[in-house]
Formats: sequence, C-alpha cells, structure tokens
Amino acid sequence: MTKDINLSVDTLGSETLLSEIILGLNNSLQRNENYFFYLFGNENNIKKELQHYKSLIKKVEIINCDEEVLMSDKPAEVVKQRSQSSMFKAIESVVEEKSDALLSCGNTGALMALSILNIKTINEIKRPAIASIWPNLKSESIILDLGANTKNDPRYLLDNAILGSSLASILFKIKNPSVGLLNVGVEENKGNEIIQNASETLIKMSKSSAINYYGYVEGNDISIGKTNVVVTDGFTGNIALKTAEGTAKMIQSYLEMGFKSSIASKLGYLLSSFALKSMNERLDPRIHNCGILIGLNSPVIKCHGNSENMGISYAADIVHSLIKNDVNEKIKEYISNILKNQ
Amino acid sequence: MTKDINLSVDTLGSETLLSEIILGLNNSLQRNENYFFYLFGNENNIKKELQHYKSLIKKVEIINCDEEVLMSDKPAEVVKQRSQSSMFKAIESVVEEKSDALLSCGNTGALMALSILNIKTINEIKRPAIASIWPNLKSESIILDLGANTKNDPRYLLDNAILGSSLASILFKIKNPSVGLLNVGVEENKGNEIIQNASETLIKMSKSSAINYYGYVEGNDISIGKTNVVVTDGFTGNIALKTAEGTAKMIQSYLEMGFKSSIASKLGYLLSSFALKSMNERLDPRIHNCGILIGLNSPVIKCHGNSENMGISYAADIVHSLIKNDVNEKIKEYISNILKNQ
Repeated sequence: MTKDINLSVDTLGSETLLSEIILGLNNSLQRNENYFFYLFGNENNIKKELQHYKSLIKKVEIINCDEEVLMSDKPAEVVKQRSQSSMFKAIESVVEEKSDALLSCGNTGALMALSILNIKTINEIKRPAIASIWPNLKSESIILDLGANTKNDPRYLLDNAILGSSLASILFKIKNPSVGLLNVGVEENKGNEIIQNASETLIKMSKSSAINYYGYVEGNDISIGKTNVVVTDGFTGNIALKTAEGTAKMIQSYLEMGFKSSIASKLGYLLSSFALKSMNERLDPRIHNCGILIGLNSPVIKCHGNSENMGISYAADIVHSLIKNDVNEKIKEYISNILKNQ
Repeated sequence: MTKDINLSVDTLGSETLLSEIILGLNNSLQRNENYFFYLFGNENNIKKELQHYKSLIKKVEIINCDEEVLMSDKPAEVVKQRSQSSMFKAIESVVEEKSDALLSCGNTGALMALSILNIKTINEIKRPAIASIWPNLKSESIILDLGANTKNDPRYLLDNAILGSSLASILFKIKNPSVGLLNVGVEENKGNEIIQNASETLIKMSKSSAINYYGYVEGNDISIGKTNVVVTDGFTGNIALKTAEGTAKMIQSYLEMGFKSSIASKLGYLLSSFALKSMNERLDPRIHNCGILIGLNSPVIKCHGNSENMGISYAADIVHSLIKNDVNEKIKEYISNILKNQ
C-alpha cells in the first residue's frame, strides 16, 4: 500500500469560502488517491460542508480552531500572539511531522514568518523563496523569487537556481531544466555586481553539470519560454509578476471595451468565444495564482486570499506531486552535486 | 515669429529605414510648424529621400557622415573611437547649442555614454534616466527609470521623481502630477532600506508641496493608472517593462491561435476586427517604444532600433513639446522648490 500524503489545510483568515476549499480538496483527491487532509478551522462549519462529499469525508481529520490570523496582522505580532490560530496550529502539525505540507489562503507575511521560524529552511538553504508557475508560448515555466526575500545577495540567487531546478524537474518531469538569470540585457557586463557575481558561480556550476545554466534572460524571455526556470530576487520578481498580471488584465479590458463598441463587434464576440475562452484559460489567475514557498523542511503553498475551488485543487495537486517526488531530497541531491564538484 | 525648435537626427546605426525616418519627421513637421532638423548621415541618400517632401526640404540641413556607431559597439570603445560617427556629430551639434535636442534609433548604451560625457546632466541631477510613456486603463503614465542606471540608491529615486513629474506635467498638461514609488507592497515596512529611505524623503517633499507624492504603488497599479508617474530603479524598471511587453505579445499570440482554431472563430475574427484593432492600437509598440533620456542639459530621445515612421513622428512630437515647454526650466523649478522648502 502506498503511504498516505498528508496535507494540513488552514481554512481560516481569508476571503476564500470554506465551500470552495472543500470542493477544491475533493477534486484534487479524485486525481490523487492516497491523499489525506488535516483541516484546521471551525469544526461545525467544516462538518456541514463535508456532508456533500462522501469519499472526502473518510480522508479528513478536523482540528477545531476558533482563532484566525487576520490579513491586517503584522508578521511579528502573529509570531507572538496567534499561537492558537488555525495557521499556527497547521504549521505545528507539519513541524511535528504529523503532516507533510501546508496549504493556506491567509496572510502571506505571517505565513512566511511562521514557516521560517517553525518549519525552518533546509540546512544548506539560507532563505526560502516564493515560486510560481507562469504560462508561456511553449508551455509553462517556474519563476522565483516572487517576494519572499527583497534583499539582494548572490547567495540567494544561487539558492533560487537550485530550488527552481528542483521544482521544474518534478513539476515538468524534465531531467535538466534550463535556468535563466533575469537581467537587463544578455551581455556579460549587464546589470549590477550582485547579479554578475551570481552568474559567474552559475557558469562554474554549469561546467560541472551540477545545474543547467542558460545565462542571462530578459523580461520578455519569460513569456517566450526561453528557459524552464527564471531566477530573480524577490523585489524584482514581485514587481515583474504584478506588472505582467496588470498588463494581462488591461488587455482583457481593452478587448471587452472594443467588443461592446458596435453590433458587428458584439456578434464577433459571440463567434470568438472559443478563441477568447482559450486565451483566458491559459492566463486564468484562478489556476496560476498560487505561490510555492520552497526551501523549507516541508513545502508550504499559499493560495490567493480570494481563491476558487479550481485554484485550491490545482495547488493541492502541486503539493501532492512535490511530496510524492520528495522535492527536498531532490534539492539536497542538487546541493550535494554542487558541493562534490566544487 | 516663434523661434525654431531644432532637432538633430542621427539617421545611421540601426535597422530603421531612412525612408521611415524622413516620413516620420515630415509628419511631425505637419503638426509642429516651427520645427527644423539637422540630419546626420549619408548626404546622397538623404537628398534622394527628401525629394518626396517639398515642405520638409526647406526645414532641413544635412551633415554628411560616413561613419556609424554599430549596434555591437561597446560604449567605452565608441567614446574613444567613433568621433566621426553620425551619433557623435549629432551630439556635438547639441553640445554646441546649434540644436536643442537629439533623436537616434542607434545603440542605446553608446547613446547614453556619449550623452552623459558630452551633453552632461543638469547640475543638480546626478544621473539621467530613461523614461517611457505607458498606456493604462485611464490614459497614459510616465515610468522611469527603464535602464539608464541599474545601481540602486535613494538619491537616484528622488531624481527620477523630479524628472518624471516634469515630464508628466508637460506631456500630459497637468499641474501636479501624482508620483508613485514602485514597491512590493503598499505598507510602510515593505521593500528594502533604499526604497524606504527614498519614500521618507518624498513624504517630506510632499508636505511642502514640492512634489505630489502618492506613496508606494505595486506592479499591477501601473496598468490601472493609479498615478501619473511611476518611479523605480533602472534594473527593476527595465525588467518590468520587458515583462509587460512580453505578456502583451503572448496574449496577442494566444488570441491569434484561438482565432485560427475553427470556422466560427475565423468569422468572429473578421467581425471583431474593430475591437482587436482598438486593442492593438492602444498597445502599439510602434507608438510607445521610444525612451526619453531625461536629466541631461538637452533632451535625447531613443527610438527602437527597428522603428517605423509612426514611432519616429511620435518621438519627434514629444521632443518638440519638451523643448517648447522648456522641460529643463521645469526640472530646475522643481529642484528650487524642493531646496526652498528644506
């Protein structure tokens, strides 16, 4: 019998409806049989929702929590004052190895702070990163860091390269994912000292086959899909991600405005619905908006504060794949390869 | 009689066709009567192109140059070795005050290096910035720096706020343009020390009404159009711009693929052409792809290396407006207001 994969789910502290969380988990369970969920939140409400899902009900344990981390809570306060919250209790279950990973839609800063403090990073990794899966013209790529760490340091960029490679190899099922370092140009004198320093080390690592380093990539290379992984610091990554999201929304608004502008356009809109649906699905933030906190002793996944069931089930699928393929073993393997070849 | 506005145009060193440059200048001349152009490049070729434009011919002086700065030239080499090039000669004409400004489609790094060295920055401004006009859901905004300066320093961010305000007030004809500082969140503890330091100074400047500082903005606020000006460092700005451009192209490709997928979609495409045209026009890189090098003693404008006449004429219009409204006086006015209120 395959070992169960246990996921702790923090059901409080966001605008995401409990019904969407439960439906999302149910859908992920259909695709991943040996899944088990610890649900942290209001026991009565969870029980009520679970009634609809016969197969899920057997794969769940509820841990009643009355307290929640608020979106407005500051991370430092949460660490001190929210020890009875669903987020804190869920993290505790991971620390105690009762559970393999954590999923939350709540306060990102608090989730990050509590995870670093309690789950802690893998020995050789200094700081965790937030990674996300971005659509591109070829398929998808992993981008990190998207805001875990806004201090710029070559060491963090190298950690991100290792973490991104591990994720891409598991999630995209490829052996040597290509890694690009995000810069303002591709010539070696571009950017600043920190990025040049990181690039030199990655070139060395690449020569010993420890990592498949492509070199510098530019902002527009992300959507072209030039590399499987795009590495950047948390400041730049966060701004690039949000700028791209904003641009996508703006274009969709322009299109909607255009389609309303004449009767021909309105008819065109109806006939184009498949084309538009296909575009919207590829960009769907309900699918692509989860952040993977990677580099911790157990994976933590952060869904959007206002998720729908599709986002939850997609995130649960990702966690399942990471645990099943032992992502942290993969990370350690990368690190040991690098150390061996130094 | 109104004083002529003189623009030096470097016609060599890029893939942009001379015919497109000349047509672009001709179109801008129709909109801006007191315009005069110094054209640096191959005299015979320029003369041949000018034949088609009776009114432009009277408003032009040709300076024959056989040498050009190549796209592959490194800035340091250009400074030493390209003193006979069209770019160098065009810059010289600005330094000698024969001309008010410069337009080039050539090597950006070389243009920047030669401009800093020869045209020099306005006394109080440490480094020039590259600014661009971005479309948003409300209208347009100024974003800077897009890559002139990849070193991060609060001083540069303040310079960029002043330069951006000056540009927005002239180009958008508004009195106190709102200025946002690009960050990973809007709370005051977000980002790094450099950005927090710059924000504190901007808050002080805002209290004395020297600048209309809005506070932090995030990546997605750019396309919402939350502020008239978005200030960032050249590293982040360059990556954000290129990521946004890449996203726009990707969405357009998704749409095209979708439209080809069925007969209904193909018919929908025909009927939707107005909606699509309206979207594409708003995003048109032929219009939006010029970079304004601002903070120098004379404005320098960089068009894309493969521009069409529309981009050239749009850029020439911008320069005309900046010179006519004495952009550098405006910048100095901002600075003196700030110094007065310190």
